[in-house]
Amino acid sequence: MFYNERAYGLGSKRSVIREIFEYGKKRKKEIGADNVFDFSLGNPSVNPPEKVTETLKKMLETDNPTLLHGYTSAVGDPETRTAIAEYVNKTYNGGLKPELIYMTCGAAASLTISLSAVLNDGEECIVFAPYFTEYKVFVENARGKLVISKPESGTLQIDEMDFESKITEKTRAVIVNSPNNPSGVVYTEDKIKILCEILKRKEKEYGSVIYLISDEPYRELVYGNIKVPYLTKYYNDTIVCYSYSKALSLPGERIGYIAVSPLMTNAEKVYNSICGAGRSLGYVCAPSLFQKLIASCVDAKVDVSIYEENRNILYNGLVEYGYKCVQPDGAFYLLVKSFEQNADLFCEKAKKYELLLVPCDDFGRIAYCVDKKTIINSMPQFKKLSEEYNAK
Amino acid sequence: MFYNERAYGLGSKRSVIREIFEYGKKRKKEIGADNVFDFSLGNPSVNPPEKVTETLKKMLETDNPTLLHGYTSAVGDPETRTAIAEYVNKTYNGGLKPELIYMTCGAAASLTISLSAVLNDGEECIVFAPYFTEYKVFVENARGKLVISKPESGTLQIDEMDFESKITEKTRAVIVNSPNNPSGVVYTEDKIKILCEILKRKEKEYGSVIYLISDEPYRELVYGNIKVPYLTKYYNDTIVCYSYSKALSLPGERIGYIAVSPLMTNAEKVYNSICGAGRSLGYVCAPSLFQKLIASCVDAKVDVSIYEENRNILYNGLVEYGYKCVQPDGAFYLLVKSFEQNADLFCEKAKKYELLLVPCDDFGRIAYCVDKKTIINSMPQFKKLSEEYNAK
Repeated sequence: MFYNERAYGLGSKRSVIREIFEYGKKRKKEIGADNVFDFSLGNPSVNPPEKVTETLKKMLETDNPTLLHGYTSAVGDPETRTAIAEYVNKTYNGGLKPELIYMTCGAAASLTISLSAVLNDGEECIVFAPYFTEYKVFVENARGKLVISKPESGTLQIDEMDFESKITEKTRAVIVNSPNNPSGVVYTEDKIKILCEILKRKEKEYGSVIYLISDEPYRELVYGNIKVPYLTKYYNDTIVCYSYSKALSLPGERIGYIAVSPLMTNAEKVYNSICGAGRSLGYVCAPSLFQKLIASCVDAKVDVSIYEENRNILYNGLVEYGYKCVQPDGAFYLLVKSFEQNADLFCEKAKKYELLLVPCDDFGRIAYCVDKKTIINSMPQFKKLSEEYNAK
Repeated sequence: MFYNERAYGLGSKRSVIREIFEYGKKRKKEIGADNVFDFSLGNPSVNPPEKVTETLKKMLETDNPTLLHGYTSAVGDPETRTAIAEYVNKTYNGGLKPELIYMTCGAAASLTISLSAVLNDGEECIVFAPYFTEYKVFVENARGKLVISKPESGTLQIDEMDFESKITEKTRAVIVNSPNNPSGVVYTEDKIKILCEILKRKEKEYGSVIYLISDEPYRELVYGNIKVPYLTKYYNDTIVCYSYSKALSLPGERIGYIAVSPLMTNAEKVYNSICGAGRSLGYVCAPSLFQKLIASCVDAKVDVSIYEENRNILYNGLVEYGYKCVQPDGAFYLLVKSFEQNADLFCEKAKKYELLLVPCDDFGRIAYCVDKKTIINSMPQFKKLSEEYNAK
């Protein structure tokens, strides 16, 4: 084979999500876009904050373009990193330091860099099901091994018994994704405390370091009084992987960061490893215009109430029609339990009603980052789908 | 070691260029910026074309911001890829196809993705000295082995005898960087033809595929009548790695592409491997605003005459003062031969005259992407440096 077999494997198979999305495009041409209820893609549907567009325009009007679009240092613009640390410390009491923040090209980059920085060949990284499927790709890119911890059924919260049983002396990292993609679940503070106690105990037992990687692009997308615990406060060996993709509705602009907790064992060495991993993977500097935007817009927010309204209509309707689902407290995903053993078949049947869901373990994932109109018009279709199963 | 040793090694040592740049910042504070002649960094000094800024402003005024900043497909915006193929085919007769173009976050990403796509563990990649030092990092990231081919002394062109002697059955890729960083040399068409003949012969001999990777961020920065051969016309198994960093003076914005030659053996499979490698390394989609900019600005150009004028003043002056240097035909670098065996000591001595050069093999590298004034004011200093050596 005169090319890389793993890369070919990853590139030649279309992802399930992409398959469904492509089917949706075709179907919309056949019967009209309004008649297809495409819940396949996690692409933000809410506009970026006004302040984002205004700041971009102003920078283009007034800044020296050679500096504006020039390289920042590899780790990122100092003003941006300072603004981020100040914001996180003020808002979450996160205890970040600008000199331990590394700007990245978004969440995926934050993860691949962090994993390459801490994993050695064959070391293990635990993730909590249901999990974002690309974690497997990213862990294996760093030549690590993905280990899956099962959730509490019903709540989809962390199952501490299962988690503890999965830790070995080869465990080097644990990824927590809260609010979670694909479930929308926010892990409770109690669960986080238990998780961190287990990790501390296991670090001591093995005389090792286990990094807690907080993948939190959905941190700001939470509803009601829900709070997402800031993990540096519970566990010293924490690496925060952040992205502005969802918080500012800028998914295509690839802007995020990695923050190493200043309380970490060897924080500077791990930060250096992150710099080295970034360099090795080809991440020279994060996009500069958007780095500079963040310095001014670190506290800007999209209108989360739009997603919340979608969630309410969808969740209440589904429950009324007899679906079992975990109420999502954040992000813009909802998992609906499959009416039959095989979730693939369930999602296939949903297509009959023009409902495009993504199969995920025993569930169908509904990405409700769509027009409210789409949600409303889809409800009678969900009713029919439910009736088909009840009629059996 | 509870973190990755290679990553730590790459991140903890400051690069030579960065060391000199930091020294320059300190020195400027001590004696004033006008008195330090900092030729260390390859950061474009010429403004982006007016059309770039105007197009960005217009997009922010008129486009739907959710679409403008939304994800494109992982391989990139279809309009952008079509515009690139049309431009390259019209301008260079390159024979590109949009469906074999993959948009990237700049040149470094283009290279790490391409190398991960084609190299298997332990396979070899040949580069031509003098070469961009990060090639070693990128090749080793893909678990390949860097092999260096020596240049013709004097011209710094490809030495075909040396090149052929370096090819083995493990050779899977060859990187050509023309115009070259750090020499500014453009490889002649004759040399490219010889190179490609050797590659074809060796592919046959070993019954293998050897990919020619054309790393060409400086393609448009050439002076006089110089033409940079477009490599797909000479060799089928060519991968073009491009970046707009220098062509449009947008180095911080991380926008470029990979193009697989449609004539390549298994072109689609290699393209799929590129998609898979991009996915594995965490490159989800290239920055969307700048992807969309390229669709309109594919033919925009920075004012190369500014760099050319710098080169002329510098080159003519240096030759007059007794320096040996290869006249650069492109890029914004010039190599000046060290007056003593050890180029590190030579560059150290240059510091006495506030001249900041980067040692590189037997040379000092001068990045002349600076104000014309800096060039003019530096010339008497270069004269003194030369005199110090002549006086010996």
